[in-house]
Amino acid sequence: MIKKLFAEFFGTFWLVFGGCGSAVFAAGVPDIGIGLLGVALAFGLTVLTMAYAVGHISGGHFNPAVSFGLLAGGRFSAKDLIPYVVAQCLGALVAAGCLYVILNGSGAVDFSKPGAFATNFYGEAVYNGKAFSMGAAFLAEFLLTAFFLIVIMGATDKWANGKFAGIAIGLALTLIHLISIPITNTSVNPARSLSQAVFTGGLAMSQLWLFWVAPIAGGIVGGLIYKFLLQRDSTEVVAD
Amino acid sequence: MIKKLFAEFFGTFWLVFGGCGSAVFAAGVPDIGIGLLGVALAFGLTVLTMAYAVGHISGGHFNPAVSFGLLAGGRFSAKDLIPYVVAQCLGALVAAGCLYVILNGSGAVDFSKPGAFATNFYGEAVYNGKAFSMGAAFLAEFLLTAFFLIVIMGATDKWANGKFAGIAIGLALTLIHLISIPITNTSVNPARSLSQAVFTGGLAMSQLWLFWVAPIAGGIVGGLIYKFLLQRDSTEVVAD
Amino acid sequence: MIKKLFAEFFGTFWLVFGGCGSAVFAAGVPDIGIGLLGVALAFGLTVLTMAYAVGHISGGHFNPAVSFGLLAGGRFSAKDLIPYVVAQCLGALVAAGCLYVILNGSGAVDFSKPGAFATNFYGEAVYNGKAFSMGAAFLAEFLLTAFFLIVIMGATDKWANGKFAGIAIGLALTLIHLISIPITNTSVNPARSLSQAVFTGGLAMSQLWLFWVAPIAGGIVGGLIYKFLLQRDSTEVVAD
Amino acid sequence: MIKKLFAEFFGTFWLVFGGCGSAVFAAGVPDIGIGLLGVALAFGLTVLTMAYAVGHISGGHFNPAVSFGLLAGGRFSAKDLIPYVVAQCLGALVAAGCLYVILNGSGAVDFSKPGAFATNFYGEAVYNGKAFSMGAAFLAEFLLTAFFLIVIMGATDKWANGKFAGIAIGLALTLIHLISIPITNTSVNPARSLSQAVFTGGLAMSQLWLFWVAPIAGGIVGGLIYKFLLQRDSTEVVAD
Repeated sequence: MIKKLFAEFFGTFWLVFGGCGSAVFAAGVPDIGIGLLGVALAFGLTVLTMAYAVGHISGGHFNPAVSFGLLAGGRFSAKDLIPYVVAQCLGALVAAGCLYVILNGSGAVDFSKPGAFATNFYGEAVYNGKAFSMGAAFLAEFLLTAFFLIVIMGATDKWANGKFAGIAIGLALTLIHLISIPITNTSVNPARSLSQAVFTGGLAMSQLWLFWVAPIAGGIVGGLIYKFLLQRDSTEVVAD
Repeated sequence: MIKKLFAEFFGTFWLVFGGCGSAVFAAGVPDIGIGLLGVALAFGLTVLTMAYAVGHISGGHFNPAVSFGLLAGGRFSAKDLIPYVVAQCLGALVAAGCLYVILNGSGAVDFSKPGAFATNFYGEAVYNGKAFSMGAAFLAEFLLTAFFLIVIMGATDKWANGKFAGIAIGLALTLIHLISIPITNTSVNPARSLSQAVFTGGLAMSQLWLFWVAPIAGGIVGGLIYKFLLQRDSTEVVAD
Repeated sequence: MIKKLFAEFFGTFWLVFGGCGSAVFAAGVPDIGIGLLGVALAFGLTVLTMAYAVGHISGGHFNPAVSFGLLAGGRFSAKDLIPYVVAQCLGALVAAGCLYVILNGSGAVDFSKPGAFATNFYGEAVYNGKAFSMGAAFLAEFLLTAFFLIVIMGATDKWANGKFAGIAIGLALTLIHLISIPITNTSVNPARSLSQAVFTGGLAMSQLWLFWVAPIAGGIVGGLIYKFLLQRDSTEVVAD
Repeated sequence: MIKKLFAEFFGTFWLVFGGCGSAVFAAGVPDIGIGLLGVALAFGLTVLTMAYAVGHISGGHFNPAVSFGLLAGGRFSAKDLIPYVVAQCLGALVAAGCLYVILNGSGAVDFSKPGAFATNFYGEAVYNGKAFSMGAAFLAEFLLTAFFLIVIMGATDKWANGKFAGIAIGLALTLIHLISIPITNTSVNPARSLSQAVFTGGLAMSQLWLFWVAPIAGGIVGGLIYKFLLQRDSTEVVAD
């Protein structure tokens, strides 16, 4: 069990350090910056790489909403839920701390300014675009996490090509970011949102509840959808 | 059968929500937007992710032109055609509705304006580029869907490495978008075109016929090309 | 044999239609164009997708330099060389013709202007960058094709994970374009260079010799390097 | 053994020629250049392609920090360390020489100017961004190489889907570049840093020590973390 928790700790560290780190350091470099496409790719690759590296140890959740969703879908044990979520949050927080230290190495940074850290929020424009209402933000986070869980449940189904699950799940996270960074800066992961809000406070902290409630609710619904509408009964034959 | 239709419904929802959603929300953000490359990647990843998630349930068409093409190629049953196409169109329409609601959450949006929704059209410039004639648009949609079916038929051939089909087919859709977004905004999928036209009306609605006829004709020809010019006879030996 | 030639024909058509087509239609769209990164991805995906679609039929060369290199490396039969190269050139030419027709559907296009078609050349600046000498262009095309063949020979070696060869080879072509589009617009494929030069004439036609000689020489050297410096002797045991 | 050293030589040549070459030739082309995202992709694809091409020969290190890390993690033999590192450095230097010759083919280039070659450094702004202190640069290189080794050790673990290791490891290098090009121009590879510094001298040469010490230290720590905190004991049963 301790190795599983280390795997979740290091995996979620990598997700925050790589995903949020690419956003903070590299997205906005003038002319040649990686932009939102690069950040979307980075988030997905954190999961893809760690899924193949430590997925065989812990299952590779790296995200409380995934743990809740897999529990709802019948693929995860309730007694492991709290330890997993704690390990994920610790990994995310330590990663955010490392980002904080490195960023400070470039001089005094005002972490309360938008964009200084990769926080999630709503009702304010992200990246000079449109501002989305709380309802729109909730719906987006809910739907995207639900489909994330459908992909996870499906790609790891015993009927599926399970060895490709790391690719499908990682790139699903890239896809999710391609859609929704301009809406909420994309969470679908409460641990990721927590880690950035703790270091910045302000709006990210007061709106943090939405980035726990919507992803977890979406994850649970996604797990249930797969289980009851898509998953083969164990008694079904292959030829269905 | 009902699970197959749910799989097509959710898969086509994801294709429209992810592909068209990325175009609507993230393509045009100034300086750091994902651009046409990001949209092309998003469309491909919707198919790649759902192919591994629910492909083992329904075969993973998510596109009426694919269903017609596989029927022509001898890989799909005629009796399933109409239910599949209906499930695909329903999934696309519900996804477009969700995009509509989220977009409205950012204030009043004029959906009749080009670019407000990811509609397909011809004869007008897409993205400030050249305007392509109806003939050029038809030829592009026809050829691209025909080759899409050749890739699908080939990658799922019993002689091929079938487990990689989800990667090959998804990335083929990315490639198709890399070529043709500036020509027609890229359809190759009647359900995707329908879903956007219904919410915008106007040009997208009056030209919708082309985005049903050209992809379906191309899909059928592609299926036939693979079947008669490329596919091994069942009596051939491996050493061919 | 006829099915092998159809596979090479359609595969090389796809390479030129997708790779050159993305360059012609989508690279230079203002603000949101796919740029050189998108073109590099497109070229790679043409090979990746067709490798999984028809690679099991013909081996998936789609490129005279690859056929020469595999012959030198002992993986291809001399009697098939000419038919393969003819099928590749025909596929490339028909694809260029289709691009020509579609482009003309957007109004009169001056195909003698640089950038109107995806021609290869040297001694003139590509994309407002530096102009590279004939020697530099030859060295780049030679080295890149040699390493392309090392990747192809290695990834399809019986000791390798051959099922991943389509991914490795396709993405090697993407990598090659990421390096060298600003040098020669990247050929490494004589059929691809021929197809564009025929429709534009001028510089592309008078310099076409280099894009036959350098890639084929590089391909042969790459095949020999792998065969003599890297490939295990057939008598070696696995534990080497 | 000689074939292993050839594999490391050609693999590291490809890493420098492709990764640094894409940065030098293609990153900064106005409007359509590949940017930092393209460079990050290029570095990753050098490793992905060579891992499938020659990984079965030498293990596919292409990087002294990886060889040190795998030694610390118990996956590599001490007697092979020096020959591997020498072969890697030679491959990197010859590749840098080829880049130098091709670049000179575009006219006289001042290689002492930042950006003329893909050197690593700290304390000066990379790409008009923030300048990072020596401490921040060291921490970033250390952490990124440590996680690179965790991914390598994990993805090649006998419990993992080892056939996907080339994808996971290559894309991990892409991810690392997505985060840290604006910090140090990204090394995590002493041979790569050496090859560029030798041709430019100046800052890159006087700061070269950091790009040997930090990656090798990080690699060793990463190897140890995986071995002692994550790797299953050989006596553990699968059901753990």
